[in-house]
Amino acid sequence: MPNYADILKEIEEEIQPLFSQGKVADYIPALSTVNAEDFAMSIQLLYGKSYHIGNTQHKFSIQSISKVFTFTLALKAYGKELYKRVNHEPSGNPFNSLVQLEYENGIPRNPFINAGAIVTTDALTSIYKENTFHTILEFIHTLTNDSSIQYDETIFCSEYQHGYRNMALINMIKSYKNIHNEIDDVMQTYFKQCSVMMNTQQLAQSMLFLANHGTNPKANEALITPSQAKRINALMLTCGHYDASGDFAYKVGLPGKSGVGGGIVAVVPQKMAICVYSPKLNSQGNSLIGTKALELFTTKTNLSIF
Amino acid sequence: MPNYADILKEIEEEIQPLFSQGKVADYIPALSTVNAEDFAMSIQLLYGKSYHIGNTQHKFSIQSISKVFTFTLALKAYGKELYKRVNHEPSGNPFNSLVQLEYENGIPRNPFINAGAIVTTDALTSIYKENTFHTILEFIHTLTNDSSIQYDETIFCSEYQHGYRNMALINMIKSYKNIHNEIDDVMQTYFKQCSVMMNTQQLAQSMLFLANHGTNPKANEALITPSQAKRINALMLTCGHYDASGDFAYKVGLPGKSGVGGGIVAVVPQKMAICVYSPKLNSQGNSLIGTKALELFTTKTNLSIF
Amino acid sequence: MPNYADILKEIEEEIQPLFSQGKVADYIPALSTVNAEDFAMSIQLLYGKSYHIGNTQHKFSIQSISKVFTFTLALKAYGKELYKRVNHEPSGNPFNSLVQLEYENGIPRNPFINAGAIVTTDALTSIYKENTFHTILEFIHTLTNDSSIQYDETIFCSEYQHGYRNMALINMIKSYKNIHNEIDDVMQTYFKQCSVMMNTQQLAQSMLFLANHGTNPKANEALITPSQAKRINALMLTCGHYDASGDFAYKVGLPGKSGVGGGIVAVVPQKMAICVYSPKLNSQGNSLIGTKALELFTTKTNLSIF
Amino acid sequence: MPNYADILKEIEEEIQPLFSQGKVADYIPALSTVNAEDFAMSIQLLYGKSYHIGNTQHKFSIQSISKVFTFTLALKAYGKELYKRVNHEPSGNPFNSLVQLEYENGIPRNPFINAGAIVTTDALTSIYKENTFHTILEFIHTLTNDSSIQYDETIFCSEYQHGYRNMALINMIKSYKNIHNEIDDVMQTYFKQCSVMMNTQQLAQSMLFLANHGTNPKANEALITPSQAKRINALMLTCGHYDASGDFAYKVGLPGKSGVGGGIVAVVPQKMAICVYSPKLNSQGNSLIGTKALELFTTKTNLSIF
Repeated sequence: MPNYADILKEIEEEIQPLFSQGKVADYIPALSTVNAEDFAMSIQLLYGKSYHIGNTQHKFSIQSISKVFTFTLALKAYGKELYKRVNHEPSGNPFNSLVQLEYENGIPRNPFINAGAIVTTDALTSIYKENTFHTILEFIHTLTNDSSIQYDETIFCSEYQHGYRNMALINMIKSYKNIHNEIDDVMQTYFKQCSVMMNTQQLAQSMLFLANHGTNPKANEALITPSQAKRINALMLTCGHYDASGDFAYKVGLPGKSGVGGGIVAVVPQKMAICVYSPKLNSQGNSLIGTKALELFTTKTNLSIF
Repeated sequence: MPNYADILKEIEEEIQPLFSQGKVADYIPALSTVNAEDFAMSIQLLYGKSYHIGNTQHKFSIQSISKVFTFTLALKAYGKELYKRVNHEPSGNPFNSLVQLEYENGIPRNPFINAGAIVTTDALTSIYKENTFHTILEFIHTLTNDSSIQYDETIFCSEYQHGYRNMALINMIKSYKNIHNEIDDVMQTYFKQCSVMMNTQQLAQSMLFLANHGTNPKANEALITPSQAKRINALMLTCGHYDASGDFAYKVGLPGKSGVGGGIVAVVPQKMAICVYSPKLNSQGNSLIGTKALELFTTKTNLSIF
Repeated sequence: MPNYADILKEIEEEIQPLFSQGKVADYIPALSTVNAEDFAMSIQLLYGKSYHIGNTQHKFSIQSISKVFTFTLALKAYGKELYKRVNHEPSGNPFNSLVQLEYENGIPRNPFINAGAIVTTDALTSIYKENTFHTILEFIHTLTNDSSIQYDETIFCSEYQHGYRNMALINMIKSYKNIHNEIDDVMQTYFKQCSVMMNTQQLAQSMLFLANHGTNPKANEALITPSQAKRINALMLTCGHYDASGDFAYKVGLPGKSGVGGGIVAVVPQKMAICVYSPKLNSQGNSLIGTKALELFTTKTNLSIF
Repeated sequence: MPNYADILKEIEEEIQPLFSQGKVADYIPALSTVNAEDFAMSIQLLYGKSYHIGNTQHKFSIQSISKVFTFTLALKAYGKELYKRVNHEPSGNPFNSLVQLEYENGIPRNPFINAGAIVTTDALTSIYKENTFHTILEFIHTLTNDSSIQYDETIFCSEYQHGYRNMALINMIKSYKNIHNEIDDVMQTYFKQCSVMMNTQQLAQSMLFLANHGTNPKANEALITPSQAKRINALMLTCGHYDASGDFAYKVGLPGKSGVGGGIVAVVPQKMAICVYSPKLNSQGNSLIGTKALELFTTKTNLSIF
């Protein structure tokens, strides 16, 4: 087994020259106040051990990483029925594009772009009604065995007040009748799930079930079927980084999902889950240093799925 | 180890009801004359053994599977320089779309759509000149250890005479100065490589180096670096099936590449290469039964990379 | 001078076979209840005389014809400054498309597609605040010399409740900072202006200033400059019928603007204004019989501007 | 009647400051060698008189102005049948865009973008075979009463050698079966018609039939029907300047057609035809000074059709 502690140290050194690059998300004021120089990386092995470097206690808003949680819940609840409302193809477009929605009658390309995640949250809302966000949060508590995790009210309000593009998306989808609940109810939940605050330790822990055939390794509880876990991993590989998904697969070679808050999670099937945090983003909206750190990791450990 | 012989038999039985579906490619007369009911599947393990079912001696035109061979040669020759001329992102569009070329200044999205493969062949033409097709064919001979493999003159001529869409692509790309050689020279090679005739045994054999870190297992010769082999696998996963790539990753979970002639190759890293043949295509232009056979295979063997 | 009364009678006869075609707008319940067989046509000459046929007292919702009134007010108030926020090119797309907005950074192609009309109403809202709709209505009262004209509350509410596509548009534009007021304020005014009820007599009367160099002929009051009047006419010719604007120019040859309520207004510069009403729409959302009636009119009178 | 001689002098003065702007077409070497400071403007009244300023004897390549001649011939030959193969809607896109062709199955938006003009030339080729270009040239001779007009061999060759984008267009259209003749035959004619050399006097003369209900005023010969003449004028207004057609209608207010060689023709129905020449182009590929000169002309004379 590789010496993960040493590898993390090497990575931390090698990424230093990159801190001058990238740009912290500033579409909402609450996000732009983070420390641009922050870096943290956590590795959670399937059985027990974990390795950490940097400020791994620092909580940041998980943003689009939440799409993995909501898609998991929706796939568990609806199975293949879900595919009628959201496809599973890479879009080739930015995370918030409306173009394909218009050409494809309101069926989002996949659940990891905003349009698809909004439909996913709407699907959960049809089941869990006013408890939808509570259900999502409880799922995160179960995955992390940590019920202290909450959303940040300031970020939530900020998202809500500036979320014109997302409001455009949901209205567009609703015009095609692919939103079944009240727009405001769905968007409140959507913006709350984006505002959930977690650190790299918690996020690495939370993704372990995807490295373990869908079973929470601590509780030994099957959350989803092995086949569903594989499919979520496949989706993270093909669609987890918007229009940089191909590049991430090419360079990192692991299923992963990024968030505009600076976090990226990645899964090594049967082995481990990883989370890296660094808030400066590349031009596609993914953590610039986070992406590089994961590339270094798979290069050093040879742990790519390919 | 699973009993592959039995699994192949099960697959052959389970696909029978699907033979009524799909449609043989008919854009050129020479392709439309194949036997629509044909089926063959070959598994080539990394060390030695192979398993076959169906008419595995029947040769068919490899069509877009040839893109794997040309991209391998070009990546070997140019390394990262190649990325300036062809990207590695899923396009989200059909195999022959011109739309993104216009928005993205003649840089094809990836080497596994027609536009990208044409640029790849042009890059090889800059090196190998009038020997380009010969070089490609020799590479296939090396990979298969079988120098009898040739292209089919009738199919080549037919492609050439009906290749308006591909001629549109290359002219468009050349208008952006991303084709460096004579259009006719490049297209002759391109249409020849598409017309190469191979059977499932040969194709499974030919992909083994991608399951083996880039090294031809028979000759123990490193054809490309391990990193390059991983990247080709990643590319096959994200872009190998055009606008059905996400679906293939989702359901099959293996790097793969399809051809409109009815063949699909797939790679299980460190383990094996697979080829399946059935000429009836689904609406995205991939073998309908071939896709299903591979889905059954990974379900039964649990050999998905996820 | 042609015998307009006779010509109107001929037109009424010749359109009869078309009543079996087309489809009344049904995107809101309040619109779908109109009498599909209704037809009315009014000609208002520049100096005095007018000619009418059919149910010219019947009021219908003017819908997109209101865009002429709001663009006139905005052009009067802002002059060329307005062009920074809304262009004057045909879009080549349907009336409610979001595609170009995304490629062109939230600047609508022209003020006669929904996106552009919403920006126009926003521009008026910046000046007239809570009196914006009142100002628009008063302008209509002035043009028609008829202060009884009002909007229909039922249609307004229905538009408002089903206006997801328009809500998508305004949110999208606001994400590009090209909406300066509260979304709800702008949309209330926008949906009210669409719900204004007028008959063909009133509408023909209201457009006369565009046939008269921008001067209201009754009051002899210059509402806009002659140059502005010409430009509005040019815009109606190139953009007045969405993605059927070219066809309308080709067949009718007059500046015109249609509404999904079934009305079409047209202007013969220096001579007259025309309004025709028939609620069944063609596939581009313009009155099918109204378009034909105007084509017959310019064929019979030779009054095309070309 | 305005004093046209004086007006032309005023225009020539007022455009002087603009000579520092714009850029001569340089996509082929043969075009880039023109004198960037050249300017000429000719007015040809319907009955007799003409007015000229600048170097009105200088011949330049008419380029896309040729599309008016070929569309006239094709409309005369095919009538409404032609609409099945080429539409008459503004495209909202640049002159050489392929995007809409792909979405709209190879039916070009209108005959005044390259794709549509190529289909028009193909339609003529089906009738006139190897005499197609000769027929077009003879039509120009008839219109101008000047049989000295020829195409420029150097420009033709240059177009032909660099015409990748146009070759992409015709191949794309042929893939949809909307080209019926050999690609090379059609393109030879197409590039020759673009290379026809005329001066502003000849071009103004040649457009007079469109100001005269389709009848050549000199010979009093009806070339096309009055209705066809109107439709060509309508098409020039809505589609004559690519994605600046709306702007041209808005500012100039006349049917017009521009060519990348620097010429623009315009028609004042029932009154005159105009041609202006200045080779520096604006960003949409239309003569920058030519457009301004026409805008000044209609402002000074009040001769807009609106």
